[in-house]
Amino acid sequence: ADAAAGKEKAMVCAACHGVEGKAMIPGYPHLAGQSAQYTAKQLKAFRDGSRSDPLMAPLAKALSDADIENLAAWYASLSP
Amino acid sequence: ADAAAGKEKAMVCAACHGVEGKAMIPGYPHLAGQSAQYTAKQLKAFRDGSRSDPLMAPLAKALSDADIENLAAWYASLSP
Repeated sequence: ADAAAGKEKAMVCAACHGVEGKAMIPGYPHLAGQSAQYTAKQLKAFRDGSRSDPLMAPLAKALSDADIENLAAWYASLSP
Repeated sequence: ADAAAGKEKAMVCAACHGVEGKAMIPGYPHLAGQSAQYTAKQLKAFRDGSRSDPLMAPLAKALSDADIENLAAWYASLSP
């Protein structure tokens, strides 16, 4: 996985999850330092609908497997 | 919410999410420092089935609203 590519892809995510993975919006999860395997699993679940969320679903549907691995690597690399 | 009560209730959670909210099992989420509002929302979603997980569902079904608020407060209080 390519964390630098994930960082670029994360521009959209930053609106809710923070530029450094620290969510500014109450009730939104912090992602900085989260397990990459967990983050990737959740993005795939949002993408295939097995985890349902009206906001995350369309965002995740736009992601390739590589995008997901890169995003997960980027967030895992940040200090929590 | 009562973080100290949450700590006691979290004995079961610790098996997968770590005694201090740092998951030792790959692919399991770290919970230390996570937004209390987010953690509570997810526990309620596991409890009512709107977020589906074969492991979390039965665990969450055993929790009262107060348990959930206390657990969420406990994990939010830990340093990530």
